[in-house]
This record gives sequence, C-alpha cells and structure tokens, in this order.
Amino acid sequence: MTDTPARELFDEIARWPIFDPHTHINPNRPAARHWDEILGYHYYTELAHSTGMPVDLVSPDLAPEVRVANVITYLDRIDSTVQYSWLLEIARTFHGFAHDRITPATCRELIERADHERDGAAWDQMVWEKSNLEAVFLTNEFDDSLEGWDTRAYVPCLRTDDLVLKLHDRQTIARLRRASGIHVEDYGSLRTAIGRLFDRFVSRGAKACAISLPPDFAPRRAIPPQAVTPIRKAIHSLDLRPDEHQEVRCAVFWMLAEFCADYHLPFDLMIGPVRNVYPAGVTGGRDLFDRRVSLYDYRDLFNHFTNVTFPVSTLAPDASAELVAYAWIFPNVLPMGHWWYANVPAYIVGDLRARLQALPKVKLLGYYSDAYKLEFIAPKFNMYRRILAEVLAEGAVRESGWSIDDALGLAKLVLIDNPKRIFGGLAETSTRAT
Amino acid sequence: MTDTPARELFDEIARWPIFDPHTHINPNRPAARHWDEILGYHYYTELAHSTGMPVDLVSPDLAPEVRVANVITYLDRIDSTVQYSWLLEIARTFHGFAHDRITPATCRELIERADHERDGAAWDQMVWEKSNLEAVFLTNEFDDSLEGWDTRAYVPCLRTDDLVLKLHDRQTIARLRRASGIHVEDYGSLRTAIGRLFDRFVSRGAKACAISLPPDFAPRRAIPPQAVTPIRKAIHSLDLRPDEHQEVRCAVFWMLAEFCADYHLPFDLMIGPVRNVYPAGVTGGRDLFDRRVSLYDYRDLFNHFTNVTFPVSTLAPDASAELVAYAWIFPNVLPMGHWWYANVPAYIVGDLRARLQALPKVKLLGYYSDAYKLEFIAPKFNMYRRILAEVLAEGAVRESGWSIDDALGLAKLVLIDNPKRIFGGLAETSTRAT
Amino acid sequence: MTDTPARELFDEIARWPIFDPHTHINPNRPAARHWDEILGYHYYTELAHSTGMPVDLVSPDLAPEVRVANVITYLDRIDSTVQYSWLLEIARTFHGFAHDRITPATCRELIERADHERDGAAWDQMVWEKSNLEAVFLTNEFDDSLEGWDTRAYVPCLRTDDLVLKLHDRQTIARLRRASGIHVEDYGSLRTAIGRLFDRFVSRGAKACAISLPPDFAPRRAIPPQAVTPIRKAIHSLDLRPDEHQEVRCAVFWMLAEFCADYHLPFDLMIGPVRNVYPAGVTGGRDLFDRRVSLYDYRDLFNHFTNVTFPVSTLAPDASAELVAYAWIFPNVLPMGHWWYANVPAYIVGDLRARLQALPKVKLLGYYSDAYKLEFIAPKFNMYRRILAEVLAEGAVRESGWSIDDALGLAKLVLIDNPKRIFGGLAETSTRAT
Repeated sequence: MTDTPARELFDEIARWPIFDPHTHINPNRPAARHWDEILGYHYYTELAHSTGMPVDLVSPDLAPEVRVANVITYLDRIDSTVQYSWLLEIARTFHGFAHDRITPATCRELIERADHERDGAAWDQMVWEKSNLEAVFLTNEFDDSLEGWDTRAYVPCLRTDDLVLKLHDRQTIARLRRASGIHVEDYGSLRTAIGRLFDRFVSRGAKACAISLPPDFAPRRAIPPQAVTPIRKAIHSLDLRPDEHQEVRCAVFWMLAEFCADYHLPFDLMIGPVRNVYPAGVTGGRDLFDRRVSLYDYRDLFNHFTNVTFPVSTLAPDASAELVAYAWIFPNVLPMGHWWYANVPAYIVGDLRARLQALPKVKLLGYYSDAYKLEFIAPKFNMYRRILAEVLAEGAVRESGWSIDDALGLAKLVLIDNPKRIFGGLAETSTRAT
Repeated sequence: MTDTPARELFDEIARWPIFDPHTHINPNRPAARHWDEILGYHYYTELAHSTGMPVDLVSPDLAPEVRVANVITYLDRIDSTVQYSWLLEIARTFHGFAHDRITPATCRELIERADHERDGAAWDQMVWEKSNLEAVFLTNEFDDSLEGWDTRAYVPCLRTDDLVLKLHDRQTIARLRRASGIHVEDYGSLRTAIGRLFDRFVSRGAKACAISLPPDFAPRRAIPPQAVTPIRKAIHSLDLRPDEHQEVRCAVFWMLAEFCADYHLPFDLMIGPVRNVYPAGVTGGRDLFDRRVSLYDYRDLFNHFTNVTFPVSTLAPDASAELVAYAWIFPNVLPMGHWWYANVPAYIVGDLRARLQALPKVKLLGYYSDAYKLEFIAPKFNMYRRILAEVLAEGAVRESGWSIDDALGLAKLVLIDNPKRIFGGLAETSTRAT
Repeated sequence: MTDTPARELFDEIARWPIFDPHTHINPNRPAARHWDEILGYHYYTELAHSTGMPVDLVSPDLAPEVRVANVITYLDRIDSTVQYSWLLEIARTFHGFAHDRITPATCRELIERADHERDGAAWDQMVWEKSNLEAVFLTNEFDDSLEGWDTRAYVPCLRTDDLVLKLHDRQTIARLRRASGIHVEDYGSLRTAIGRLFDRFVSRGAKACAISLPPDFAPRRAIPPQAVTPIRKAIHSLDLRPDEHQEVRCAVFWMLAEFCADYHLPFDLMIGPVRNVYPAGVTGGRDLFDRRVSLYDYRDLFNHFTNVTFPVSTLAPDASAELVAYAWIFPNVLPMGHWWYANVPAYIVGDLRARLQALPKVKLLGYYSDAYKLEFIAPKFNMYRRILAEVLAEGAVRESGWSIDDALGLAKLVLIDNPKRIFGGLAETSTRAT
C-alpha cells in the first residue's frame, strides 16, 4: 500500500465476503488439518524442486511431518516470492504464527499450531468464517457423487476435461457408464449419458461447467455424421488417427456447449495448458504452455453459442490483451480471473488496468483462487484486492477524480456482484446489470 | 495527473494545435449535427451490445432520438471505461453538459444541446476551432471525388484495402474503371488505372496511402509474369484458387508500394484486423484479430522499398515490442499511433515508454484519432497527451533530470513536428530532423 | 530515482563490484583507445542509420575521426534514448566530459579526451578499476587461442553458433580441423573434435558454453544413425535438403549439450535472432526476430539434460512471461539478463517484477552487459541497478515492509551471488543456495 486512497480502499474491500467462482476444494475436507496439506500445495513443492529439491522428498509414502520438514529446508530459496507470502499469511492469520520467516527452526512449532485433526469440521468452519467466505465453487469430476455437503456454500461445477480429451481411455467410458447409468456405446448413447450428467449436476445445484483446453485445440462446429465413427472407435478404445482424435474432441466439446445452452450454465474455458511437459516434476508441477495461442480459434464457438456465457481464462500472460478485445466485442465472452502462471502481481496489474479501462464494468469477473484448501482463498484474494485497490486509487480516484465510494462501487461489482450474477443464475440474463 | 511536472507538461501540451494523421472524417460533414452521430460511434454501440443491447436497437431504420435513448439505457454498464470518458468530455466541452453522468434522465437535454442541424458548417468551424485543429487526414476510397473541401485542412489519404483485398469483386473493378477512366482488363491496364488514381490523389493534395492488412497476409515481391493470369481472372470475377488469391493480393500491394515510391507518399500499414469475426455484431463492431502476427513477414517489403516511409500500426497490443525493434533497425519503418484495441491507456503507457526510450526521437509519430466525427479528436488526443505528459514527467524530468522545456521539446516533436514532416512532404527526406 | 528508499538502495548497489556473465569484450584490447571504438558500437551506428545516416559514413575505410564526426552529426536525433544515456555516462565518467550533450561542437574535445592509444593496457586497467569489475565473460569462437590474458578476470566462454548453424560452410570445417587437430570427416570424428574443443576451453578456465538460436530452431533428441549421412554431407560441403540441414543442426546442438553435461558447463541459450533481416544495414545492425517463438519447442532438451544448467535469454520482449513460467517449473532453466531489443527499461521493469515475484531467488541471474568495450559495462549495469533499486523499493520495501538490508540481500543474490555460483563452478550444484 503506497498511499492513502489505496489503503482506504483496501481496508474496506478486505472486509467484504468472498465469492470464489473456481477452486479445487474438497467439500468433505475443505480446510487443511495438517501443515503438510498447506505446504504440499504444488506451488511450494514445484518451486522447491525448481531450486534443487529431489522429487522423492515429497513422496506420498513419507510421513506428513517428514515432507513438511523436507520442503521447509528449501523455503529460504523462495522466500521473496508472492507464493511464499500466501504461506506466511496463512501461518499468521490462521495459526497465530508470530515469526517473520518459516524456517527449519520454527518447523515443529508450525506443525503443532496447524494440527487440527481433532477439530474436524469445526476447523473447516473456523477457516470459512475467518476468511469471510460466502460461496466457493468446486471442480467436480463428472462421476462425483455430489453428496454430503451444502451445495449453496460449496457450489458444484462440472469439470469436463476427461470427456473431451480422454474419451478414448477405457476408464473414462467405464466411469461414464457408471455415473450415467447409460450403456454408452455410440454417439447417441454418449449424448444421452452426458445429458444425464447435466441433469444430475444441475439438480444438485451446479452453477457452471468448466474445461481446460490445450493450445492446439481449435473448436469447430461438430458435424455429427462425420463424428459418429470416430466417437464409436473412441468409446471402444480402438486406435484413432490424429484427425479422428481431433474429431472426437471437437464433437464432445460442442455437445457440452449445447448442454450448457440447454441448462443455462456458464462454460468456463481455461485455455492454454499442456499437460506433462516436465514429466519428472512433482505432482501438480509438470504442466506448462505454448504461448502461440489465439482466441481467433474460438470464433465459431462464440458465434454459434450466443446464449452461452463463456468466462475465459488464458494461461499465457502475453495473451491477455487479446482476451480484452474478444470480451469487448463478443457479448458472451467474459474475462475471468488471473490464472496460474498469470497469477503474478506484475501480470495482474497490467491486465486489470486494461480490463477496467476498456471493458464494460458489468462483464468484469474479478478473481478466483484456484485453491485446493480453504486457507489459501483469503491470502490469494487479498493479493488481488490489494492490486485492485491500488489500480483504482491510481486510475479512478487520483487520475479521474472519482470519489472513494464510486471506486468501492466498481470494486464490489468486480469482486462480488458480477460473479454472483453470472454464476448464480441463468446464463441468458448474464450480462444484464442489476 | 498525479504530480506537478505532469500537470505542468499537460497544461502546456493541451494548448497546442492538433495534427491528426489518420481519421475517417467526412470532410463534407465533419462535425456531428446530432448526438446520435456521437453516440452511434461503434465504440458505444459495440460496448452496449457487448453488455446485452440487441443490435436492432441501433438500427438505421430507427429515428436518431430513439437510437440515442436506446444506447443511453446501457451507458451505466460502461461508464467506467476510457471510451465513455471521451463521450463525457464531448458533452461537457462542446455542449455545455454539466452533469456527471449521461443517463436516461439527461437524454433529452443532451439531444437538445447537441442539436446543431441548423448551424450547418458554422458548427463544423466551431468544433474545429475549439479543438484547435491544424490538419486532419481523411480516409478516402480510391473513387472518392476529392471535391468540395479545403484539402490543406482535410488532407486526402488514399485508402487501398479494396484494391488489394477485393479486386475480384465486380464492384471494385466497376468502381476502378469509372474512377480511372481506364477499361481495366489485365495486369497492364490495372497498373495504368492505379497510376491514374495516384495522379489524381496527389494532384488533390493527398499526403499518404493507407491500407489495413489481415494477419495472414505476407507481402512478397511480385513477379509480374506469374501474377498476370490470376490478376486477369480476378478482374473478370472468375473463380480463384487460394494461391491465386494470394498472388493477386501480393501483386496489387507491391504495385501500390511502387506507386508510393514514385509519388513520394508514405504508405500507412495497419496490420492485424480480421474482418467480420463476429458477424452478428453492430456495424463497425464485428472485426477482431489473431495475435499470431510478426513483422518478420514484412521484411522483403521493407528491404525493397528503401525510399518509401512505412508508418506502421499493429492491432495486437502484445505485438508492439516487435514494432519498436523493427522501427529501431529499418530507416523506413516508423511506429504510428496506438490503434483501436491497442488504444487503451494501459497498453499505450508501456508502449510509449519503450518507444521513447529506445527509438530515435525524429521517428516517433505520436498519435492519431481514427475519429469519424471531429468532436472525438480532442478527447482522444487529450487522453494521449495526458499519458505523454505523465511518461515524460516520470522518465525524463524526474528520473533523468530534464528541464520542463526539454520535455516539452520532445513532446512537440512527437505530437507535431514529426507527423508534419513525415506526412507533409517528400518521403525521401522523411527521417531527416529539421 | 523517485524516492528515498530507491535512492538509498541504488547508492549502495552502485558500490558493488560487477560480475558480468556475457560480453563480447576482446581481452587483448578490452577498453576503447579511441572514441570511434565507443561510437562505433552498433547501437549508435544503427540508430543513426535508422534516422537517415548513409551506411558508408561509418565505413571501415574511413579514418576513425571521420567516422566519429559523421555519427555525431546524427546524435541529436537519438539523444532522448537510453542508448544515448550510456554514451553520455561514458563520456562523463571516463573522460571528464563536462557538457550536457555530445554535439559536433564538442566532437574534437571528446576525441582528444578519449584518446588513450598511448596509455595501452594501463587504460584498460583504469577502466576496469573505475568500473569496479570483478569478472567479465567473453564470447570466444571455438578456434580462439585463449592465450594472452588472465582467464580469471576475462573468463572464456565457448560460442558455438558456427558449429550448429554453419557446419556446412567449408570455413567452419577447416577451422575446426585446425583448432582440434582432428581430421573431421564424419559423425565420429566430429564428436572427437568437439570433445577436444571442450577439453581446451575447460582447461583454459571456460565457465560456459553459449549459442544464439533462430526462431525456427526446435531442438530434438538426436538419433545418431539418422544424422550420420547429413553430417557427412555437411562436413564435405555437399548440398543438403532442408530436412538434412535441420538434422545437422539438431545433432550438433544435442552433441554440444552432451558435452556441457560431461564438462559441467552451463549452456547459455540466446533464443530468437534472425540474422541479416535487413542486409543493407550497418555492421551489427542487420538482425531482428520473429516473435512467434515458444520455449515449448525446447521441452525435450530441458527434460533430457537434467544436469545441464540452461541460462536462457529471449529476444522477443513479449516472450518474457513464458520464460518466467519455464524457469519456475524446470530446475535447469534460469532466466538470464535482458537482451538486446529487450534491454529497454520499459521491458526490463515489467519482466524483472515478474521474475522477483514468481521465481526462486536463487535462480535469478540479474544482468549482463553484452558489451564490446569495457566502458559500456558500468553504464549498462547502472541502468539495470537503478531499475532493480526502484523495483525493490516499491515492491519489497514499500509494499511488503522489507528492511533496506533485506532488499540489499536480495539485490546481491541477483547481481552477484547467483551469477558467481552458476557460472563459477559445477553445474550440478547450480541451483543450491549457499
């Protein structure tokens, strides 16, 4: 915080509840019961590994205390990063950790302070309240039971990567048959089965469908007769030619978009990752991207599904200006959060400025945490809220003469009102201001 | 304005006349006589549409008052944008509008204040003077009569998109035959006809040739014998193979560059747009881009036409650093303005800093408005002048210890002297400092 | 310097010795003995040419005084650039030049002041000490004798462009035979010869291998049997098909990486330049780039050579965010300096912020001068040190509450400790913090 209006804005914004439209939280065990569940987040294991930590030091075969002790040895190599700052904020906010740094010397204390195994669900509730969470979106596999939690707090979201990218895996089909109760064996029964998934998800309160797509994927309108044979071959795990793989991916993706239209679900597109680029990495730390992507490849999709809202995230930070332009023109394209390798203040600040300057305020979908444990939501949102406060203090208050209240009004739209409107109801009214 | 030197610089710069080297002004009706001509600018209709406004609410079949009332309903959704700030500045500066926001409640008042139908050309003159305009470049179709206005104030510029990209359209050839008086039917007569266009434009005071080029266009040296057949087929609207289309585009483009050399005209290259990416959009709000472009594709052009000046605009904001490098090395490549989707302060500020830091000051071609109505020129230039003042205050005055006068000297070069030199005379002296 | 902590940080950092891991210094004549050797740097001749200076005004046939006088005539066109600021800093720091600008009127004075022909090596020593240099890495052709200087001060680095990109040139093979003493005639003898080069370089104190690679190069694992014939054809200067050229480049490059592994040498990858894009330019001012590159093309290399450290520079400024992501995930990929067209404060500041925020501090390889003469090292490093001081003052001190000492600790790691560790010893310990 560098000046008074920014500080004033941040102090107010930090009091608001958090609506988090994309996480990987496990609703049956949302908060971390052991510091290992915090320090095991791939941001820390991959950064420690990047500085030389052998992968086996975080093996699932080790005791949690051992994994923690191992990673902590490497933290002094990454303690200037923003990722580390989330960690320290968690230790201080949730565990009363009073030291300036997390070091081997404070390892035992931290493990003890962060041990909430016995508190069980009460600890989840504590973190929820301390973080002032209002709703947290999940990432549910299509065969998730969706049972056992309050879906208004932990909102289901149908994740569809496997259906589009791994339909040819025996496992995918077996899971789909089980989950849908349909004996999937061809294009028609595939569609029926996927329809069943949407039925179930929507009836259980799902508010979005989501997928991450590799840089070489270019959606095109499916021509069912042409897709019938490749889809059948994929379902039966027969060998597919590259063009048939492409046909399968396009056809299933298009089918999902059709269901999003029918069920009024926003379809989150997370564009860019290539999986397993660095196979020797730690779990969660193997994916990267190819920056040579363009939303131009998505034009047919955006044109065809005018009544589906597409909240879009791009992984290559240098692709963010293109997203601004596409969200400017296409009513159904919305810029969503700041994702993964782009979730770095230096990239967020430039991108956020452009979005605020050039895009309709009713289309701005502030931020999401992408967190695996509740504890990460507040520190990540605080990082973003700090940047938002500074950008508004500089651009709106100082340069354009807005009042603090006007700036707060815009911040609220970005952080709460828009995400709640887009992810809370029917897609067709998604871009209407309240 | 965040500090004293920036304010001091801006106050002075804002007093200077404006030399605007690229607009779409209609010289026979340059200013808006009705608020509908302001609010009908595609920036507002496309942004309103992007938030949910149906396209038919701005149909040309509606009465202007109705269109205005329709768009105004949506302005509260975009009132945090820089585009909206131009609108408000126009209302306040030219129409004495005293409110803070343009709302349905102030719609009637604004329409009345902005009604200058009866004032006719006197209103054009009023806006011209109040904006302190010195010269405004036009975008003239090749068959424009170029009659009826002072071409020293409204400077003709030969726009050549149709010749290069639509030669195979019957209409293009019919228009070309009429405009040139030549019965165009093959390569040779095409060249003669285009030569006639250059004759006429230059004799009527044209100071530039311009074209916008799609991302998939890569100029290459035309080999006339090879182009002869495709060109003949295009002229007679026969079917062309993709490679023949490409041949036609290259051959005509190369021919235009040759004429630019002969007639000493700068050739404005506006690189990037793909037309009609979103066909269901409002008029003027359908084009986008594919960010995967490189000036490397233009190397043969820049190498061959050493005596043609190429002021270059790039549409993809992330391509701007490449333009800095090419303008750094090629004497005939100059970075021009900040265009369309790149005309956003967040993008301008980074790009401008780099241009000022890395490029010869005599090659910097500040800004152009791209405006359709005179009223937009001053607010857009003011946005740029504010950024320029801040960048100079920070980089030159505060960090490098320049005097305010030195900073103003550089600003004047960028905003006035260079554009006047490059677009005012002979290309071969274009990069010589005065 | 805009505020107190930045100034305080810079004042301290500017006192530190300089460790410069990449230059083109000639160790037998490291400092400039005549102002022509300063002003003849391609940054000035190419920028002057870019504003209209004919190439022959800097012909090697002219007397140095004439060349200097010629270039000085054009300096008023580029005196707002950061490149010019280095020049002025050299004149003031090393030559007691007291004027504000370098003009034709001060030309004679400057030439006289900068004339150190008679001082010989004493002048080299003077510049070395005044610049507070600790070690300067060279760029040595593979057949460089490596004799005649202190290789702890002027550290050899094996530059391998010719071996990979020009193996088919008769000259390359002739030089390689001479340098290695091996009668190179096939794959096996090529490997033996290159092994001899590594032997010699390492025994003479080389601490790195380096190469610059064009955008169309994508390394892939060499399959020796497949490379045998193309390599033999290249060695004997027979015509190669494009795929054979590609095979040769890949095979030799892979071989070099294998030797880097064996000899524990970091392998500097300088990715992006296309040579001779503007053939009519001045010497050193003809190369540019194609921005459509991705480190994704290098995944096989990074995965295969886990024990080779790859300090990576990217030429396209917009590719810098991808390098941050790859250095974040791959233990053996390190972000190196800010290179050539990316060596502009506007680009450095954003890139540096992202590196500091997202990457392990032990992997940050601050800066290198790329200088041809010693005099340029200090001004270029000062430019970077100023940016580093400002970024740390803003991000670490002001926003995160670090002490000045903590910020200085990080600066020292970035500028000195990391480069010395990575380029001073064995690759396998390269990412271990001290």
